[in-house]
Amino acid sequence: MSSILNFDQMFTHLRQLGRIVRIAVVDGIDASTIEALQRALNGGFAKVLFVGKCPDLEEHPTLGLHPDRVVHVPERQGLNAAETAVALIREGEADFLMKGLIHTSELLRAVLHKEHGLLPQGEVLTHIAVSQTQTHGKLLFFTDSAVLPEPNEAQRERQIDYAVAVTKAFGIPTPRIALTHFTEEVSEKFPLTLHYRQLAERARRGEWGNVIVDGPLDVRTSVDPVALAVKGITSPIEGRADVLIFPNLEAGNTFYKTLSFFGSAPIAGILCGAKCPVVVNSRGDDASSKFYSLAFAATVVAQS
Amino acid sequence: MSSILNFDQMFTHLRQLGRIVRIAVVDGIDASTIEALQRALNGGFAKVLFVGKCPDLEEHPTLGLHPDRVVHVPERQGLNAAETAVALIREGEADFLMKGLIHTSELLRAVLHKEHGLLPQGEVLTHIAVSQTQTHGKLLFFTDSAVLPEPNEAQRERQIDYAVAVTKAFGIPTPRIALTHFTEEVSEKFPLTLHYRQLAERARRGEWGNVIVDGPLDVRTSVDPVALAVKGITSPIEGRADVLIFPNLEAGNTFYKTLSFFGSAPIAGILCGAKCPVVVNSRGDDASSKFYSLAFAATVVAQS
Repeated sequence: MSSILNFDQMFTHLRQLGRIVRIAVVDGIDASTIEALQRALNGGFAKVLFVGKCPDLEEHPTLGLHPDRVVHVPERQGLNAAETAVALIREGEADFLMKGLIHTSELLRAVLHKEHGLLPQGEVLTHIAVSQTQTHGKLLFFTDSAVLPEPNEAQRERQIDYAVAVTKAFGIPTPRIALTHFTEEVSEKFPLTLHYRQLAERARRGEWGNVIVDGPLDVRTSVDPVALAVKGITSPIEGRADVLIFPNLEAGNTFYKTLSFFGSAPIAGILCGAKCPVVVNSRGDDASSKFYSLAFAATVVAQS
Repeated sequence: MSSILNFDQMFTHLRQLGRIVRIAVVDGIDASTIEALQRALNGGFAKVLFVGKCPDLEEHPTLGLHPDRVVHVPERQGLNAAETAVALIREGEADFLMKGLIHTSELLRAVLHKEHGLLPQGEVLTHIAVSQTQTHGKLLFFTDSAVLPEPNEAQRERQIDYAVAVTKAFGIPTPRIALTHFTEEVSEKFPLTLHYRQLAERARRGEWGNVIVDGPLDVRTSVDPVALAVKGITSPIEGRADVLIFPNLEAGNTFYKTLSFFGSAPIAGILCGAKCPVVVNSRGDDASSKFYSLAFAATVVAQS
């Protein structure tokens, strides 16, 4: 496949794959979730399993236009809607999870349940987002802007693993992963930068296959070849990062909010690390951003 | 005075004040610094003291058009150029410092010198920047994107002090200062948020005068009334922050780099805390951004 460079190409890719991705949506009765799912149905790549609460199909007649692709799954005895949806994933009856009108914490409790949940041993639940900006000539992925306050070394390595898997699903032949910090300096004062250097070295030795990892780089030298040259720095990323790994949640969240508001960039996001992607947009997100996120999740699972 | 809402109004304000601000520039021989100073001279609000190395006036004849406003001050005996410039500030012969073709660390060594430097006891050297974005209807100040890795409580309080002084110099009658974090939640898990709440309470009791301080807020709820409403949060900032205080340098630097690159926003910056502002743009900055920064410094000192 050729690289997916923007969201339109992502939608086209999903249509052309011809694969139907099964979405288990938990209490999907809020307007923006319904509209996002409707767009996925119209896009021809989705089957929707409304787990728990289900919208009134008389009020949403267009949902009924795809009777074989819209199913209501009531809560199972003794389980709530989130637990039921997780069971569907475990049984191979659905491909990924989407949050409707429930609290994220309730959904995550089911996902993270030690015995009946979806997180394999050694994996880490972390958020990865993808943005379409006016400045960068391709999609820009970044992690973590929503979940892990201060990733430790093992968690950071998982973030790289997931970023590799996700960018490969987008057809990026040699993903460029930038480990960001506020300076390019490697120093014992900032132990993070020593780990960054190790990770870059391990990537050079081929640990992640055909993947470039480098850092510390700041956000600008990660994505701007001119800034890189002006600073007199050389990096195999060459100012053309596909992925930014952030040192902590303050930085990742600041990037997300600044890019969306001041950069007017649409952003999609999923949780990685569990057996399947989990779409957990916040209440405030509009239908478009929920649709982008579920298309993001669909692209990841369609490739796996 | 009325509020300065953008950089053009800042330049107009400086012209109208009719005050000549004396800039001590240390080794100001690089092209972008010379051009920035030239623009300040043309703007009619500056006198330039070239301390240490001085550009060849035959090569830059337009500098010579203001013979009474361009002075060369050689290094004093036993002092380097940075130390000489600091001495000029201490003696009241110059109003602020600007870095030319020397390392920032060398300039800061002179500024921070315990005996002969410029940092009063109890003050903190911290960076404050101001950006002109396409989205926010006014200037947006932020701190710290360049100096303090992890401000402690005392340092954060100084950041508020300086932000108040700076925004007052820009004629903002009631500055709105947002204390940013990745969530609006106050929690013992994040001690920073407890300090934020204390600071908001102290501001309500009038500690900083006619100033609104609130937090924790994320970057978006600080500047976007719609996001604030959608999240169901109330804040006296009302999504109209004049100042963002960042929890750490990773977040502050990420904001700076993201805003400048993805938001295409011009940004000016100065160091605060010393007896005078210090302009320390990096080598890579172009003449415009150095000019914005020196105009920012001039606006601050012209008001004091």
